[in-house]
Amino acid sequence: MGALGYNIFADMYGCDNVLDDVEYLRGVMKEAAIKGNMSIVRTIFHRYETHGVTGVVIVKESHLAIHTWPEYSFASVDIFLCGTKSNPYEALKYIELKLRPKKVYTHSIERGMAIEYERIK
Amino acid sequence: MGALGYNIFADMYGCDNVLDDVEYLRGVMKEAAIKGNMSIVRTIFHRYETHGVTGVVIVKESHLAIHTWPEYSFASVDIFLCGTKSNPYEALKYIELKLRPKKVYTHSIERGMAIEYERIK
Repeated sequence: MGALGYNIFADMYGCDNVLDDVEYLRGVMKEAAIKGNMSIVRTIFHRYETHGVTGVVIVKESHLAIHTWPEYSFASVDIFLCGTKSNPYEALKYIELKLRPKKVYTHSIERGMAIEYERIK
Repeated sequence: MGALGYNIFADMYGCDNVLDDVEYLRGVMKEAAIKGNMSIVRTIFHRYETHGVTGVVIVKESHLAIHTWPEYSFASVDIFLCGTKSNPYEALKYIELKLRPKKVYTHSIERGMAIEYERIK
């Protein structure tokens, strides 16, 4: 095993005008978790007083998070997963379908490298 | 302004035997948010049936998350912030003090680049 966890980041520019709609976003993120074959534990979504939403879906495999800046039509999505059963890219595909960004940058990093925790045993 | 948000990651290897203690971790992460000059909105912490904890602290400035693997003495911490008022490194310093990892790797990325959202206007 190479890593304990995987972080996938997507920066979504030029999204549709849905980034202040906390219930819409909750629905999108929950459905994204299901599409990505994750098991939802709990969700927590918060709309800020002025604008913007922060939402987290805790899943058995770790979490999905979204932060939105409606004033810039920008949304950032993070997916943190452990295990190999889930497909974060299916989740991302669904989120893109519902936010319709004009441009998306995606990248990923590994977390908790076996080589490191074996070194310090 | 260069970026809308900042992600800071810390992979903590060889932590003390506290990684299954959900209430201890909730306390640590809340206090870390305060140390980092963030304003707590809500917290959500979950202990998995077998082992390990996932916890998220939603703050006005975005979120802090922790995932633990007690069986590997490993914890991953993510901090996502917007604005310049908070100090994520003060938060991290406090978490390290309370988890006492033998080794920590930290890195950061910027999210939502001004150059990009201006391009697609």
